[in-house]
Amino acid sequence: MRTALVIGTGLIGTSAALALTARGVTVHLADHDPGQARTAAALGAGTDEAPDGPVDLAIVAAPPAYVADVLADTMRRGVARGYLDVASVKGGPRRELQALGLDLTGYIGTHPMSGREKSGPLAASADLFEGRPWVLTPTRDTDTEVLNLALELVSHCRAVPVVMDADAHDRAVALVSHMPHLVSSMVAARLEHAEEAAVRLCGQGIRDVTRIAASDPRMWIDILSANPGPVADLLSDVAADLEEAVRSLRALQSADQDERREGVAGIEDVLRRGNAGQVRVPGKHGAAPRAYEAVVVLIDDQPGQLARIFADAGLAGVNIEDVRIEHATGQQAGLVQLLVEPKAVPVLTAALRERGWSVRQ
Amino acid sequence: MRTALVIGTGLIGTSAALALTARGVTVHLADHDPGQARTAAALGAGTDEAPDGPVDLAIVAAPPAYVADVLADTMRRGVARGYLDVASVKGGPRRELQALGLDLTGYIGTHPMSGREKSGPLAASADLFEGRPWVLTPTRDTDTEVLNLALELVSHCRAVPVVMDADAHDRAVALVSHMPHLVSSMVAARLEHAEEAAVRLCGQGIRDVTRIAASDPRMWIDILSANPGPVADLLSDVAADLEEAVRSLRALQSADQDERREGVAGIEDVLRRGNAGQVRVPGKHGAAPRAYEAVVVLIDDQPGQLARIFADAGLAGVNIEDVRIEHATGQQAGLVQLLVEPKAVPVLTAALRERGWSVRQ
Repeated sequence: MRTALVIGTGLIGTSAALALTARGVTVHLADHDPGQARTAAALGAGTDEAPDGPVDLAIVAAPPAYVADVLADTMRRGVARGYLDVASVKGGPRRELQALGLDLTGYIGTHPMSGREKSGPLAASADLFEGRPWVLTPTRDTDTEVLNLALELVSHCRAVPVVMDADAHDRAVALVSHMPHLVSSMVAARLEHAEEAAVRLCGQGIRDVTRIAASDPRMWIDILSANPGPVADLLSDVAADLEEAVRSLRALQSADQDERREGVAGIEDVLRRGNAGQVRVPGKHGAAPRAYEAVVVLIDDQPGQLARIFADAGLAGVNIEDVRIEHATGQQAGLVQLLVEPKAVPVLTAALRERGWSVRQ
Repeated sequence: MRTALVIGTGLIGTSAALALTARGVTVHLADHDPGQARTAAALGAGTDEAPDGPVDLAIVAAPPAYVADVLADTMRRGVARGYLDVASVKGGPRRELQALGLDLTGYIGTHPMSGREKSGPLAASADLFEGRPWVLTPTRDTDTEVLNLALELVSHCRAVPVVMDADAHDRAVALVSHMPHLVSSMVAARLEHAEEAAVRLCGQGIRDVTRIAASDPRMWIDILSANPGPVADLLSDVAADLEEAVRSLRALQSADQDERREGVAGIEDVLRRGNAGQVRVPGKHGAAPRAYEAVVVLIDDQPGQLARIFADAGLAGVNIEDVRIEHATGQQAGLVQLLVEPKAVPVLTAALRERGWSVRQ
């Protein structure tokens, strides 16, 4: 790939443009707001001048609601050898393009699985996609040349290509992202009018469950509006489990021992299915989570405390796999959980104790 | 407090005993399994010999299902000036004791909000409760002397005392712990039979939402069995939101513009209520979460990388408030999010770049 045209210079478009420019590709930038394209150009993402002739790849990074129209317009103008979009939903745009009677052999729908809380070209970064999955949804009719252009883009962005069917992708993101987002919002919503004394008892569990409920509703309305069917299907499944759990809990209050036994079985069932599903969530390195063990260290809130813990762990040759900082309620002290390979636990514990840290047994 | 009797030398009982012994209190240990009490004594938690006469405080740390019976037996024997339990639910045990006709002026129900994945005396630690809330549920009839003995215990354990009504406590833990736990299990359960390609797309969002679904079902059956009413009420509220969300998502698929508009309004409502609830979850220091900003650094998986980042941050005088490690799918590289005060972002970014780190813009 020598030349590319990025249409839509927000976070994703500008980040891809920065990555391509860094790898020596000549990138042209366009946006319905020319000021945005100028900003992206000023950041070093390419030039906001129009290309002289057809480019190798046109990357449409417009908001979901406009993607099909912008793609159709771009393809009709014949500005590129290949066309792709980066919208978070893939089935709808493809069907819209088909309905418009366009030849789709030169088009491939894609979805980079990365983002951040901020948007716009100023939030962009050449390494936004680094190590993240980038879904490609070719069909039997997709030109191999276009698939290869898309793979080259993904490679330049140092993302990990994952080939999927468009509708399977939409069901997958409903499962791993859209449904969990709404459920997280519903758990958080219960706290809106809760008593202060109850909220004080929140611990790391509810903190984790509700973290993504802090996201911008406008962005999520766009995302969910583009994928309502699969999300509704999954929420219905969750609703069925919820009703079963409510029935089981009510049975636990029964005077009848058989009913109570059925209640226990119902609760156990959902907990065990939760275990079985949770274990499939990839941890680091995309594998099933390895069994790390936690070494828990007491710290106070001075700058440099974590630095010294990590330095001491490094001196002991131990690789920290994950970190969780748990701070105390109303206090300046906290606990740090260092997750390490089980065999590293005694080494790390001894090394930290030797250096004066208070390590929990 | 000079003397205490701990009945039930599992994780909680032994941890409290270790803390009291460390502060100079003479602690007697008892367990229905004398071997457990011997183990706790061997760990330095006290003596497994019975006290000569009444102790100052009897701490009943038996499993929830046995708490009321063990308390009743202990109180009838008159072995202490004051009695407390540490079970995770408070309304039921009190009502059971009342039904047994016991004088409850010498009793106070309490609940230390701490625990860990492991159980038994070998998992115990004197600092288990450090900085965590410890709920006390005195009534108007509770002896002030007994309340003060409980406060002394909490202080010796370096926990933060929180006074609440017993039933309010049970509703609060249903809200901040029991309900979120079941909902997390239900989200995770959707992954049990999901296609591998879909599971590969999991990111940090679903990882956080489903983390607690990994817990031991047996322990959670005990916890939920002791508090079924408040948990069922909250799950019913979540179920109502779920049904409303399904209706709204279906409306988004309608050909009718007014219906679609209502669908958007319904989705927006749950997302905004989620925002409003999430913001109430205490962050570190028990306060509403301060607006930290993330500095994102690319690392590879070598031991010592985190140590060097933290050391470099420490040299720049920046206090890292929280850390999140995001690892790549199928790669050995990952991103570290360092959460810091907004004013520290430029300082930290410049300091890390100067030392050769790849910091995201």
